[in-house]
Amino acid sequence: MRKGLFITTEGPEGAGKTTVLNLLDEHLKEMGIKTLITREPGGIDIAEQIRRVILEPENTAMDPRTEALLYAAARRQHLVEKVRPALEAGAIVLCDRFVDSSLAYQGYARGLGIDEVYKINEFAIETMMPDLTIYFDIAPEEGLARIDRHKGREVNRLDLEELDFHQKVREGYHLLLERFPDRIAMIDASLPMEEVFTAALAKIQEILPLK
Amino acid sequence: MRKGLFITTEGPEGAGKTTVLNLLDEHLKEMGIKTLITREPGGIDIAEQIRRVILEPENTAMDPRTEALLYAAARRQHLVEKVRPALEAGAIVLCDRFVDSSLAYQGYARGLGIDEVYKINEFAIETMMPDLTIYFDIAPEEGLARIDRHKGREVNRLDLEELDFHQKVREGYHLLLERFPDRIAMIDASLPMEEVFTAALAKIQEILPLK
Repeated sequence: MRKGLFITTEGPEGAGKTTVLNLLDEHLKEMGIKTLITREPGGIDIAEQIRRVILEPENTAMDPRTEALLYAAARRQHLVEKVRPALEAGAIVLCDRFVDSSLAYQGYARGLGIDEVYKINEFAIETMMPDLTIYFDIAPEEGLARIDRHKGREVNRLDLEELDFHQKVREGYHLLLERFPDRIAMIDASLPMEEVFTAALAKIQEILPLK
Repeated sequence: MRKGLFITTEGPEGAGKTTVLNLLDEHLKEMGIKTLITREPGGIDIAEQIRRVILEPENTAMDPRTEALLYAAARRQHLVEKVRPALEAGAIVLCDRFVDSSLAYQGYARGLGIDEVYKINEFAIETMMPDLTIYFDIAPEEGLARIDRHKGREVNRLDLEELDFHQKVREGYHLLLERFPDRIAMIDASLPMEEVFTAALAKIQEILPLK
């Protein structure tokens, strides 16, 4: 029995997801709500082992479909061991990146096909789709610039070459917004952080009374 | 471009698959045909790493769906690195166990659902379905007895408890025969080995002139 709420955040690096997620977590806790903040592989031993196979630098021969299946496998195990028990205990689970990352990055930007990647993720997730997904929308140039300011360096040639890819990721997320309008809510992540936080909190509050 | 032929064998342990596969391989080689005999993970480094995660005795918490995704991932990599290049080079690839094992064991006997498990395997295999699958049909009792004779011991209580499971696996294979009548050919594996070999070779010869 699922009594809690499953909320995921999506968007590029540099969109401020992590900061806002931590603020939301604090705020919900102050409201007396039990929360779990996590991201895959989330300390789950089997999921960590799978992630090590994905990230092993020597595995250069890895086929994109092998990789997508491994991400789905690690997702499944994290979901079963960490997310599901928390939902059954009535918590609000805040998960940074979930199925939509695979759909936008691998399905769309890497060209495997959103439908194809969705197929294996449906198998992994079954009925445990998020109740709400907050998508942090930002122009790739701006997200990239934020990361660079953070690192204290200038945008370099390599970053600019990657811009095309990040533009495709954004297009992918926008396609997902059209496809799952009831589940995914878009937030303008170029706004000041307090405004982004307020907008995200409002989205969560919209679904709180329903449960 | 796929110029070779992709042939898989299926059935329970004790059905004589390995022996007959080796005989077929020898026979085809004598006919001057280039062959590759293999089985997953087939020495492919990434597939071996994935298989280690599946087989690690400490991974008792592994969810059946995680396991099915990992098998599909290892299958994909073995296919891309070993089977596909051989097919492109015009070889006859003889692969001991392939997608139908997942469908019969995990999809049917373990109860994940044949359709569900087929979905993720379609993603892994794409267009590289076998041209021919030879299914070695044998009553579980008999297959089990053969293994036991091989090991020189009597059938024990544990074996008999497993009989139910192996009966389900056989039912699963029979459902697959109904579903893929053009691809899967059944052979009566209770017959003497020469007869099984002759029947298997006849099935292969049926498709040889077509290529």
